[in-house]
Formats: sequence, structure tokens, C-alpha cells
Amino acid sequence: MIREIEVELDGFGDMADITEELRKFVDEYVERMGIDEGAVLVFNIGSTGAVTTIEYEPGLKKDLPRIMEKIAPYGEDYEHHRTWGDDNGSGHVRASIIGPSLLVPFVNGRLILGRWQQVVIINFDTRRRKRRVLLQILRA
Amino acid sequence: MIREIEVELDGFGDMADITEELRKFVDEYVERMGIDEGAVLVFNIGSTGAVTTIEYEPGLKKDLPRIMEKIAPYGEDYEHHRTWGDDNGSGHVRASIIGPSLLVPFVNGRLILGRWQQVVIINFDTRRRKRRVLLQILRA
Amino acid sequence: MIREIEVELDGFGDMADITEELRKFVDEYVERMGIDEGAVLVFNIGSTGAVTTIEYEPGLKKDLPRIMEKIAPYGEDYEHHRTWGDDNGSGHVRASIIGPSLLVPFVNGRLILGRWQQVVIINFDTRRRKRRVLLQILRA
Repeated sequence: MIREIEVELDGFGDMADITEELRKFVDEYVERMGIDEGAVLVFNIGSTGAVTTIEYEPGLKKDLPRIMEKIAPYGEDYEHHRTWGDDNGSGHVRASIIGPSLLVPFVNGRLILGRWQQVVIINFDTRRRKRRVLLQILRA
Repeated sequence: MIREIEVELDGFGDMADITEELRKFVDEYVERMGIDEGAVLVFNIGSTGAVTTIEYEPGLKKDLPRIMEKIAPYGEDYEHHRTWGDDNGSGHVRASIIGPSLLVPFVNGRLILGRWQQVVIINFDTRRRKRRVLLQILRA
Repeated sequence: MIREIEVELDGFGDMADITEELRKFVDEYVERMGIDEGAVLVFNIGSTGAVTTIEYEPGLKKDLPRIMEKIAPYGEDYEHHRTWGDDNGSGHVRASIIGPSLLVPFVNGRLILGRWQQVVIINFDTRRRKRRVLLQILRA
């Protein structure tokens, strides 16, 4: 079973909590298939977005982008900008470091996550983007 | 098949080699199910721990935490600390960058890893923690 | 179904686009098994290589290694070098941060990737290396 979700996000590390979408997706899978164990693949489609887990609260929503800006500063000279006349080299590098794929297990029909651990999609592009995320259940 | 393992670790990037636990888990799966190919999902439950592979030796056990401290220094001012009066914003950011999920394939009943490549769980919290890791076999 | 591919790469972050190898592998799987949905696990065997996605173009091929050199500089003093008399502590740390495993979904027999998103294997060792990557199909 697969589902594509879309999330519109500001640039430079804006993120959204998609944990509820994962839970609903797993609920529907369990209901339809009668299988209550597996893992959800969360895959960001595109090269300037990333997925990971974080405690989703207003502070860390600012802290992670700030640290990623230190790692790959926007204002530096990226070779990427010479290829396309683009300005988002920093966003590409940040996304590649965090990565586009994440797997979250579920057991007895329930996602296994810490109490303060949410699944997020992050937009590292330098402009507002509609990010596309594919959810897919893998078999245990 | 799933298994939860617990590992008690110091803070600030202390890590443990859990490769042997993976091997035993795969051995038992092969024995019980008669299926000798698949992949082991290694998932850290919680938002200040991470999983990856590394050559597990005393030098790199210090080098990786040192570099992560440079990336997200403990002493900086994190917005996260204003949310909870907490002091572990650096740990959250480090964990989100490395990520909570890892997949290791096995073929003919044997884990596919390099000779100097071990699976580690890392505690980036700022205090000693019992970290929980879920192991789950996915079907090839 | 599994396949091991080998890619010879220079050190310090040289990378290769292996997306076509993934496509061929999925095509053969669909043909042989008659199953057109699943995910490809891409796993780097060894502790100084990593896998991720990136827009594979000459600019970013230089930008990502430059940022990784800033994160874990080659010239610093790594404890790892005391263990083995080695010089590649920086490469180990960089590889562990980006990570060795990636999952890419396929649906209706086609890999789900953005138009400018390619799968790459990166060699962070400090010398030319033949990198080994295991491809494995996981069941949806």
C-alpha cells in the first residue's frame, strides 16, 4: 500500500510533523490487509527536502535550521550556482546530509516512536515549496 | 519478528556496538522461519539517540562525539531550552542529523557488513540514559 | 533478489550516480517475479563510504565534499589515527554522519525519485577505493 502526501513549507529548514498521517496510513493498512506488523517507509521525493525524527516543538523547529545554516551557510559560494544560476546549493547539501528516507516500525498495529519523537519532513530549498512524501508499508 | 534491546549509555555521544545482538536475532529468525534473506531494521526509540555504522574502536568512539560537539555545541543558546528549561537542545539536533533508522541486509543467513563496520547506538542526550532500540526483520 | 555492485572512486568525497543500476535491478525483479511494488535497499559495505540522494551535477559533486571537509577536516588530530597509524579518521566520521543505508520505493515497476534526484555512493576514504554496494529488494 502506498500514499503520497503533499506539504507546503517555507524555505531554509521549515518543517512539518507528519506523524498523524503515518498513523492513519498504518490504521488503514491494518484494517484492509489484516496484517498488524511491518514498517512505514517515508521517502522525500526531490533533492532539497529531507526526513528525520525530532521532538516537534517550536524551539527545535528553529534550532535545527540554525545549525544546518552553520554547516552549509546560504551565503557561501556554491559550484552548484554556476551550473544553473541557482541560489540553493546550501539547501541541496543540507538535504543530502540528513537524507531522504526513514523507516518507522509498527507492531500490533501501532507505530513505535518515543513519546517526544515525531516524524518530520523538512524543506531546505531557499523558497516556499510543496514537498511530496511517499509513504509505503514494507512487510515484516 | 521483533526484539527490543536496551543499552545504558553515558551522554554526549557515548555509543555501544550492537552488531552481535543483530547477528543473534538474524540467527534465530533463520532458524525459526526457515528464511535466510531479508534486512534488519534498527530503530532508535526516542529523540536524543541515533543509529549508524562505524568502525567501532576506542579512537573513533571519541572522534565522532568531538565532531558532533563542533556541529551543535552544548554551550550554545538553543530555543529548545526555553520550551522546557532543558539543557539538551544540542543532543536533539545531533540525533536528528544522524537519524534514528538503519537497515542492514542479510543473505544466506549472514549480515552483510564490512570487516571494520559495526552497528552502533549513540546517546546524544546530556545525561546517562537507557536507550531503547527496536530490531525488526523485513522481508526480501 | 540481491545484487552487489562495485564502483571505483577517488577519495575525499568522490561520488558516482548509481540510479541506472537501481532501475535495471528493479526492471529485472519485476520481470522475474511479476511483482511491481516494493523498495530497493542500497547498502554501502564498509565504514568509509556512504549513500544518499543528490542532484548529480558537477557543481554539487564539489560542494558536498567541501562542506564535509569543513565538518570533519582532514588535517585535524583524530584519535583514530593513534589506533591504526591511519590518516582517514575524517573519512570515517563523515561516512557515519551521512550513513550507509538508503531505501528507494518503486511503484508500478518504476523508481520513485524526483526529476533532479539521483542515488549516489560516496567514498570518504582518503585514497582511491573500490566501493561495494549491496542492492536488495524489500517486499511491500
